[in-house]
Amino acid sequence: MSIELHDLHDAIAGIGLVDHHVHGSLRGACRRDQFESLITESDRPVPAWMTQFDSQVGFAIRRHCAPVLGLAPNVEADSYWSAREAFTADELTSRFLGSSGVAHWLMETGYRGDEILTNDELTGLLSSPVSEVVRLESVLESVAPTSTAAGLRADFCEELARRTATAVGLKSIVAYRYGFDFDPTPPSDQEVTDAAGRWLRECEAGDARVADPVLLRMLLWEATETGLPLQLHAGYGDPDVELHRCDPLLLTRWLKAVEPTGMDVLLLHCYPFHRNAGYLAQVFPHVYFDVGLAINYTGARSAQVIAESLELAPFAKILYSSDAWGPPELHYLGATLWRQGMETVLGGFVDRGEWAADDAMRVAWMVGRENAQRVYGVRQ
Amino acid sequence: MSIELHDLHDAIAGIGLVDHHVHGSLRGACRRDQFESLITESDRPVPAWMTQFDSQVGFAIRRHCAPVLGLAPNVEADSYWSAREAFTADELTSRFLGSSGVAHWLMETGYRGDEILTNDELTGLLSSPVSEVVRLESVLESVAPTSTAAGLRADFCEELARRTATAVGLKSIVAYRYGFDFDPTPPSDQEVTDAAGRWLRECEAGDARVADPVLLRMLLWEATETGLPLQLHAGYGDPDVELHRCDPLLLTRWLKAVEPTGMDVLLLHCYPFHRNAGYLAQVFPHVYFDVGLAINYTGARSAQVIAESLELAPFAKILYSSDAWGPPELHYLGATLWRQGMETVLGGFVDRGEWAADDAMRVAWMVGRENAQRVYGVRQ
Amino acid sequence: MSIELHDLHDAIAGIGLVDHHVHGSLRGACRRDQFESLITESDRPVPAWMTQFDSQVGFAIRRHCAPVLGLAPNVEADSYWSAREAFTADELTSRFLGSSGVAHWLMETGYRGDEILTNDELTGLLSSPVSEVVRLESVLESVAPTSTAAGLRADFCEELARRTATAVGLKSIVAYRYGFDFDPTPPSDQEVTDAAGRWLRECEAGDARVADPVLLRMLLWEATETGLPLQLHAGYGDPDVELHRCDPLLLTRWLKAVEPTGMDVLLLHCYPFHRNAGYLAQVFPHVYFDVGLAINYTGARSAQVIAESLELAPFAKILYSSDAWGPPELHYLGATLWRQGMETVLGGFVDRGEWAADDAMRVAWMVGRENAQRVYGVRQ
Repeated sequence: MSIELHDLHDAIAGIGLVDHHVHGSLRGACRRDQFESLITESDRPVPAWMTQFDSQVGFAIRRHCAPVLGLAPNVEADSYWSAREAFTADELTSRFLGSSGVAHWLMETGYRGDEILTNDELTGLLSSPVSEVVRLESVLESVAPTSTAAGLRADFCEELARRTATAVGLKSIVAYRYGFDFDPTPPSDQEVTDAAGRWLRECEAGDARVADPVLLRMLLWEATETGLPLQLHAGYGDPDVELHRCDPLLLTRWLKAVEPTGMDVLLLHCYPFHRNAGYLAQVFPHVYFDVGLAINYTGARSAQVIAESLELAPFAKILYSSDAWGPPELHYLGATLWRQGMETVLGGFVDRGEWAADDAMRVAWMVGRENAQRVYGVRQ
Repeated sequence: MSIELHDLHDAIAGIGLVDHHVHGSLRGACRRDQFESLITESDRPVPAWMTQFDSQVGFAIRRHCAPVLGLAPNVEADSYWSAREAFTADELTSRFLGSSGVAHWLMETGYRGDEILTNDELTGLLSSPVSEVVRLESVLESVAPTSTAAGLRADFCEELARRTATAVGLKSIVAYRYGFDFDPTPPSDQEVTDAAGRWLRECEAGDARVADPVLLRMLLWEATETGLPLQLHAGYGDPDVELHRCDPLLLTRWLKAVEPTGMDVLLLHCYPFHRNAGYLAQVFPHVYFDVGLAINYTGARSAQVIAESLELAPFAKILYSSDAWGPPELHYLGATLWRQGMETVLGGFVDRGEWAADDAMRVAWMVGRENAQRVYGVRQ
Repeated sequence: MSIELHDLHDAIAGIGLVDHHVHGSLRGACRRDQFESLITESDRPVPAWMTQFDSQVGFAIRRHCAPVLGLAPNVEADSYWSAREAFTADELTSRFLGSSGVAHWLMETGYRGDEILTNDELTGLLSSPVSEVVRLESVLESVAPTSTAAGLRADFCEELARRTATAVGLKSIVAYRYGFDFDPTPPSDQEVTDAAGRWLRECEAGDARVADPVLLRMLLWEATETGLPLQLHAGYGDPDVELHRCDPLLLTRWLKAVEPTGMDVLLLHCYPFHRNAGYLAQVFPHVYFDVGLAINYTGARSAQVIAESLELAPFAKILYSSDAWGPPELHYLGATLWRQGMETVLGGFVDRGEWAADDAMRVAWMVGRENAQRVYGVRQ
């Protein structure tokens, strides 16, 4: 390895990452079958004739997480599991998250919060600061039991203000709940009231999951009033998404509509539409993106996905996230694969004489840390 | 080459492949212009100012098939053609299919069957077993001349039962005949009877090609009653497809609808939507895929396509096929490029320390053989 | 480097390229902020917290264009800008275009023509010939002030005949003005007259930009009467496009409809849908494509984009263009990155033994020069 590539390796290893979209790690112990169901986006039981360890993310856990537990790289799945069982959940969190080199966690708190550690608990276990990203749909669902059709919007705004008092960003899962092919205009008060009435009746009947496009649009437009950046799940996720309706290009008209409000929009994951996201990030000053979740789930192929994310978008518009939820392996693995992938890709540019090594280091710092610090206003 | 990579090469070379979607080879001699029209998905005459040999598949035939005929690799097209003319059609079939290392052929018999060898004839020429995959649309079209609007469904089911008595799988070409944006629900009896009436009148007028979406859906739903796995052409094919309507993501609602029936669904080819197929194969336990046809047609680029197929899907959900039809070069080339591509891609993972060599061998066997054996219940 | 790869390098370096879709270079001096806004497809002001030099195209300019100005590769952006300011606009044009090795420029003249040099002016500065490609929408807009609803079609055709007397091709930007999801049939005279009436009233009100799908379709169908090849912007461009509506697959029915007219259709850029374009170029004899604009804008990643363009399409169906407009760096950079990318990709095929070196050279000449010479009938 040349001195230049050695320096690049050291520079990337030294970045105190901002993981700008991540969730808590598991609160308690889990069985192996539970673990396997948490390293796939499938919500179906793992069939008896297969193991989720036989996948890119499973192999990557055996390769990169095993050494964190004192095991050899690529140790067999059974051996990995045996060794892992000797640790408590908190020990695993401390070890994996503490080894990740993440300097700031922007934790989104809206998904199955009872199974994972709270931000306060994580703060107690970790040396790096933890900030909060608030999920819009969860806030709306939390006010439903005590709200009315006519009052839902105001109740939501009031609760959102309370919840975001110390938050650094917002998150929407309109991709899961409806898709990106929604009406790009703000809903009228009457539309909201009508939709709220229908939905509150459903809530009383037991289904408190908000999927009404009018209400989802209301959340997106109210977000523009907060001054906070908005994260949008885009592309690949669990089978709730209809993936072809989650191509971020379908947001084009809405992105133009919210551009004058000054709200920054951060497209998360985006796979397999990450090149489309790169286009949006080039042409719209308020649009950013990452390949978050896709890094962990493509494992040994993640360098290629990272490379594809470094095409059209200016380097000031690309961020890092892990989207880890649950097994703390995922928090560590995201950071590790990102560092390794960036080194492979940027090192390749340098090695071929296309980029200066100093530029490669500078871009790695922008993507891994500085862009997120600027967008979210976090400077720790 | 390290010992590990050498072992991987040998392991992949030694896999007795299951080619899970393939057709017969040519029954008789063909002229060069006919041959050229069979190494493209275009159904238009080859323009005078070009040759189909000047393409990835053409170059790959010159590279990989020439040595099978005793020629140097990359011999010129004219020399290749001259040498080829010294062989009979059966000799070419024996030589190319016999050299492919395919241990089991799952031959789909529904397309232009008079021009290619039957499964019985192939069985006579080959040492590897041949099983049958039945094309649903062909079965329906075969009963049309003697059926009625009210009786079409029952007549189809009866004929399908007869035809599948020894078959291992089914195939649908709804992608060609309509697209994947069909109504995901089962058609009612009345809808089927009405559509059957319209179609049978068309048949009497001379057009026996079934393209009615109600009838095509009927076939897909009757397939679920057979207990057999269903192959679906997806993505790239001849100009009959409207390719943007053949993205397998458009099947999402239908895949959810048939999931409770227990039918396995195998998405074929999928290019350029193979990453989308990988997503479906991760989240739905009953969904499998391959990059079949795309391997032959991308030639020197096929390793990259194979690499992209090894991202989201668990390794138990990926299969091998050639989709060869006609020139026996294609039956050989598919297997050869797959072995070479898998060695390049998995060897790269091993070489970079990301995968253990044993895992690479194991995954190659799963994709090339074992997954198909499990799904189709073929164990030879 | 082997002798074979050395020869391939020399062969590619020696190709007198036909840049089959390009525009004039800047007529006068420009400020740095203007320059930065011309090296992105965004039409928004560059935000204060970033520079467009921090992008693939910006890095590629520093890498490849700096030496043309006597600077070291990868010189810093400020140094590049200082050195550049010592040259006049004409000097920059002569130096960059003259160094590009382009032997024939097919200049499209329809976009912001007052800011760039005319074809006559370019002819005076350059030793390579300059031919004209006429933008259909610009011709229509030029006749609007003196036309009538009933006469618009005839007036357009008359002006088109005059403008194309010495032109070699046509261009449509229906992708920008509407999208590819237009009615594939020719509009009736009555439809055209009605649409013309509406549009001419808009023109009188001050908006002379034609965006009516009936009029845009009229242009596409009148193009078939000229005997000239038609270029279509496809895929990636400025934020006027709704990118998901510019997937060339959406043209499938229209491509079939115009196939009998004998008109050649050249799909430009196509990113990120270039694999889709490769499919169309395989199955339809009259369809060609390039990855034009995407080469400059993906910079150090352009070899990968070029590689992806060399999959399904026969090699007689792929062309080279830069789509440069304005800064003459872009005219040079397109050619330079194309040569480098083709050498990387084809050299890789040769190095792995997949292609013969002679074939690689031959394909490079076809794509870089000969295919365009044949399609446009230009033989200089």
